[in-house]
Amino acid sequence: MNFASDNAGPAAPEIMAAVIAANEGSAMPYGNDPVRDGAIQKIRDLFEAPEASVHLVATGTAANALALSVLARPWEAIFCHRAAHIEADECGAPEFYTGGAKLALVEGVGAKMTPEALRKAIHAKGGGDVHSVQRGPVSITQITEEGAVYALPEIEALSDVAREFGLQLHLDGARFANACATLGCTPAEMTWKAGVDAVSFGGTKNGCLGVEAVVIFDQSSAWELELRRKRGGHLFSKHRYLSAQMEAYITDGLWLRLAQSANARCAELAEGLRGLPGASFMEEPRGNLVFVHLPRAAHARAMAAGAKYYLFGEDQALDGDPETPILCRLVCDWSCTSEKVQSLLALFRGV
Amino acid sequence: MNFASDNAGPAAPEIMAAVIAANEGSAMPYGNDPVRDGAIQKIRDLFEAPEASVHLVATGTAANALALSVLARPWEAIFCHRAAHIEADECGAPEFYTGGAKLALVEGVGAKMTPEALRKAIHAKGGGDVHSVQRGPVSITQITEEGAVYALPEIEALSDVAREFGLQLHLDGARFANACATLGCTPAEMTWKAGVDAVSFGGTKNGCLGVEAVVIFDQSSAWELELRRKRGGHLFSKHRYLSAQMEAYITDGLWLRLAQSANARCAELAEGLRGLPGASFMEEPRGNLVFVHLPRAAHARAMAAGAKYYLFGEDQALDGDPETPILCRLVCDWSCTSEKVQSLLALFRGV
Amino acid sequence: MNFASDNAGPAAPEIMAAVIAANEGSAMPYGNDPVRDGAIQKIRDLFEAPEASVHLVATGTAANALALSVLARPWEAIFCHRAAHIEADECGAPEFYTGGAKLALVEGVGAKMTPEALRKAIHAKGGGDVHSVQRGPVSITQITEEGAVYALPEIEALSDVAREFGLQLHLDGARFANACATLGCTPAEMTWKAGVDAVSFGGTKNGCLGVEAVVIFDQSSAWELELRRKRGGHLFSKHRYLSAQMEAYITDGLWLRLAQSANARCAELAEGLRGLPGASFMEEPRGNLVFVHLPRAAHARAMAAGAKYYLFGEDQALDGDPETPILCRLVCDWSCTSEKVQSLLALFRGV
Amino acid sequence: MNFASDNAGPAAPEIMAAVIAANEGSAMPYGNDPVRDGAIQKIRDLFEAPEASVHLVATGTAANALALSVLARPWEAIFCHRAAHIEADECGAPEFYTGGAKLALVEGVGAKMTPEALRKAIHAKGGGDVHSVQRGPVSITQITEEGAVYALPEIEALSDVAREFGLQLHLDGARFANACATLGCTPAEMTWKAGVDAVSFGGTKNGCLGVEAVVIFDQSSAWELELRRKRGGHLFSKHRYLSAQMEAYITDGLWLRLAQSANARCAELAEGLRGLPGASFMEEPRGNLVFVHLPRAAHARAMAAGAKYYLFGEDQALDGDPETPILCRLVCDWSCTSEKVQSLLALFRGV
Repeated sequence: MNFASDNAGPAAPEIMAAVIAANEGSAMPYGNDPVRDGAIQKIRDLFEAPEASVHLVATGTAANALALSVLARPWEAIFCHRAAHIEADECGAPEFYTGGAKLALVEGVGAKMTPEALRKAIHAKGGGDVHSVQRGPVSITQITEEGAVYALPEIEALSDVAREFGLQLHLDGARFANACATLGCTPAEMTWKAGVDAVSFGGTKNGCLGVEAVVIFDQSSAWELELRRKRGGHLFSKHRYLSAQMEAYITDGLWLRLAQSANARCAELAEGLRGLPGASFMEEPRGNLVFVHLPRAAHARAMAAGAKYYLFGEDQALDGDPETPILCRLVCDWSCTSEKVQSLLALFRGV
Repeated sequence: MNFASDNAGPAAPEIMAAVIAANEGSAMPYGNDPVRDGAIQKIRDLFEAPEASVHLVATGTAANALALSVLARPWEAIFCHRAAHIEADECGAPEFYTGGAKLALVEGVGAKMTPEALRKAIHAKGGGDVHSVQRGPVSITQITEEGAVYALPEIEALSDVAREFGLQLHLDGARFANACATLGCTPAEMTWKAGVDAVSFGGTKNGCLGVEAVVIFDQSSAWELELRRKRGGHLFSKHRYLSAQMEAYITDGLWLRLAQSANARCAELAEGLRGLPGASFMEEPRGNLVFVHLPRAAHARAMAAGAKYYLFGEDQALDGDPETPILCRLVCDWSCTSEKVQSLLALFRGV
Repeated sequence: MNFASDNAGPAAPEIMAAVIAANEGSAMPYGNDPVRDGAIQKIRDLFEAPEASVHLVATGTAANALALSVLARPWEAIFCHRAAHIEADECGAPEFYTGGAKLALVEGVGAKMTPEALRKAIHAKGGGDVHSVQRGPVSITQITEEGAVYALPEIEALSDVAREFGLQLHLDGARFANACATLGCTPAEMTWKAGVDAVSFGGTKNGCLGVEAVVIFDQSSAWELELRRKRGGHLFSKHRYLSAQMEAYITDGLWLRLAQSANARCAELAEGLRGLPGASFMEEPRGNLVFVHLPRAAHARAMAAGAKYYLFGEDQALDGDPETPILCRLVCDWSCTSEKVQSLLALFRGV
Repeated sequence: MNFASDNAGPAAPEIMAAVIAANEGSAMPYGNDPVRDGAIQKIRDLFEAPEASVHLVATGTAANALALSVLARPWEAIFCHRAAHIEADECGAPEFYTGGAKLALVEGVGAKMTPEALRKAIHAKGGGDVHSVQRGPVSITQITEEGAVYALPEIEALSDVAREFGLQLHLDGARFANACATLGCTPAEMTWKAGVDAVSFGGTKNGCLGVEAVVIFDQSSAWELELRRKRGGHLFSKHRYLSAQMEAYITDGLWLRLAQSANARCAELAEGLRGLPGASFMEEPRGNLVFVHLPRAAHARAMAAGAKYYLFGEDQALDGDPETPILCRLVCDWSCTSEKVQSLLALFRGV
């Protein structure tokens, strides 16, 4: 009963079938094969961005770091939330790939930055002063690391602030599909139509084996990104396996269906938790992640039965006050079933 | 009829089967799963190195750059052959991962460095002088980029030179298995028993989808390499697919059988070329690569029929002197068949 | 009437005389001269640290960045105050020299970090987790960027926290001498005896033309620092001019006398400001910097008369509310005279 | 009797006088003073380049590395001679400042690259291939590290090759003035009129304490270079001492007179060596460096008498064959006198 991560789930059958199908005969390496062109084209179509620069890599950290490396110069600040994956969970990959850019942290509930907090953070980095690092791109995560979802006007408002200072906006879309499912919007609406300049379009967490696309709406950095990808060791020699995953992921709306399924299971889980005495949400779940304060007894029962999920935050010592609820992160991926959700709820309920 | 690269071939059925089998249920991400531990252990057993530090990545460039990044400091020289993959084909990945180390180039026929050339190159970098970059690790490729194979005593002789100066020895084993097949030796004999300190143990070119192992015989840099892997974006969230490939690759000697098959087809190809009027080898083929000077007419026939392979060297203009032979690189991978070899030879022969 | 910076003052006569004296005849370049050895020895004696590794550079940013580069690995966090010079005023030099380390910001009044805030910041960077950057050195500034002075027990308390986590402690001593003058302690007492591992020992702000010493009490990184200094372009070919400055700076306690004079003028200035209606200190001045809220009229008079000093903080718009005081930073250097102090006070008083 | 380096000489009296004169009163720091503007303007006038971007630093390595960092991207090759200072004597500073660019080595007698060798080296780095590092700027040294001087048409020919490939040309002018003195040309003629895009204009070796100017004829990278200078720790707080040196250096043609004097002494030395039995030049001396094969007895006499100079090349073991001459590098700086030259010659002659 694994609710630890959407990375803990398997690949979807359609994705695996595509990989198997791609394994026929020979194909020119390093992306010089027709499958790659097809996959790239599908992403451009999906984003309604016929000129977008698109590059496939295998990990989300690579996608984020490469995207940021073409947006930020080494002496610039990247504005992100304190809880952002690029700040907290990539062991300094953005610093490495940018050649030493600084991450300037922005506050906000639910790991969402507000326009006011962003503007304040930008102001604090002196523009035009040689002593300070310079103002660089803004990076937001959708769905955020704490499960919140930016509404389209919220993205636009952040983009407006960025643009006011001449800065670009990057979107870490590790759970891009789940956000589209929640908002009922198109990829274009959630990105360039809302003022986003570059996207890490995630596949891995949502049913792929390992594939992410860096999508940059301005073509001018396309070659630079190819070189940075190679130099980072992220150009696959047998690139067809990346292409095949991405192609299948987009075909017939699979990406969205997988996310809708994950979100639906999460909603079911949330519904069940609402009825659990002593449970309360850190914030209302909207995508495929739940952050919930649980009674310790409920948590202990689930652990004893082998359920897997992470506690959240610094102060979650297991030997803490038994009266204090414990904050848990529960994640549903595409493969999660109602049965699995109900089993976990039953453990929590202790019946 | 693709002889362009061992990267052009498909994955072996056993490897694909393992990936499919790994796609069951959930598994803790980032290598925190039992499959990973099993794969690592198998590599340690294969290398007879129970304490080795082993790390899986998806590309050869990542494996090389990460291995070198723990062997070389930013102000050191890495000694390698002028034709080495790390120098010529990784877009500066070693410089990137080491933080700016310099590649000091060594000469030698067949892309093999000689002990004398190595010693001379090391001497030329002043030890103890603050103005020069300092002496760092030596890196060799086995099988070399020009198809030559270091005999074990040759590796030992290079290792002796390195050790004389207190330097470590890295082996780029993109075609490690093919070399073992040629030499009839064990992985241990070709590495630590011959004085090699770190290996990029390749799987991708030899029947995997994309997996390589960094193997370092000294445990002291294990944690540093884990951090560098993460920071480089090379820690897979769904790590099980890397582990499954590597586990299957080693099981029951598959790695060696695949290489033996590739080498055998290559030998058959070489045999056929020996009988081709006007053909001559750049050097005697010993593994799974052939570098052969071909009559232009033979080459033209193969191209016209859709054969795929690369020309080699700078001066191979297709519109060159029709009387001058053209230097071609032909590569056999595990999936190459006798039929395919004979078809190519028939094209060359023009019959 | 320049109170803008201790960098605005001239060099002391003794320092200039030493530079002139050093300009006789030839001397082997790059520090291979006897003057250098003498200067290094004097620093070791001053710090009562016969084994310290000592390296001269020309700027404080170079001293800090080089010191940190041997203390921090690229994937580590450097813990410093939000207002630290290394964070706010070096355009990312620490990130550049360390190869991409992250500065983790600690809060505290007067730009002083408290042990509690430091411990909390260290806790927030997960030790042992590959996803997060790792815990690296702590860096404090003495005198702080907001004019506060750490008492010796305060340094010891921070050192205790660092040591608890196995971390090293760096001290940015751009105003080292002024702090010693304030505390009446020895350099050894303010550094290694209090648990400091590495110091940027400043000379430039206190009467030199441009010289700082990196002092590291553990010899093991001495050669690495020499290489990093050269690689950073900070090894002077005519090194004697750095050595001569530093030698004269230490001889006969000049360093301390210059700082005592600056501090005394600052105390006189503070005394005068205490009597100024409407003026109030941001915090009680203890070294050679005053941060004072001034009535706008007083400020306007000083500006009109050509006085030079910086406003402090983000919200100091000159066209702000005339009733709101304005926060000014006033700095006295060694060359500041009572007459100059009284002239500024007279302007503020408007008499 | 020091002929070891032009870095071993003192500063010229005019330079020292300017530093002393600059030490009056206060001046805004970090180059925000009028002296700086005057010095920059004088350099622009000297180079007949009213729009040039000019930046003062204290060391030649800093000047070279900063200049190259704005010309080369991290994934590019910098084409330079194997003996270039940036390759052999800067401990990897170009790699550090560029973020890992590769130095591609070009051959040529006297440390001069030929257009043919340059073209061949450029060809060898594949343009447009993602696997190889990309083609970046060309860097030449004038006077070369082996004492040779590029004639203006030779610089133009190299510039033509660079331009043919769309590459920029950097000139390391550590001995810029000596070259102008030799060629009798203007700074403009030796640089932008001959196709040079960026210059490290040296002062240190030619009578300054420590100052070099980065001069870039295209203004577009001016702000970037300011940021890189700060980030590298090379922005002086008391910048007036750099400005004062440079201002005096250019005033009334001092820079040229000092170099003419050094060259004249060198010519006198060469003349004397021509008459020395058994002596022969590595190549005809043209600036202020002599590379001469000396009889070992002559060399031994000079050493015994305390003369200082470096041997050149790898194989100059002092205990070598007594019949084999030994290759010595003799350098004259502006302060060298006829008397000193004649004294050395007398030692060589043994009379």
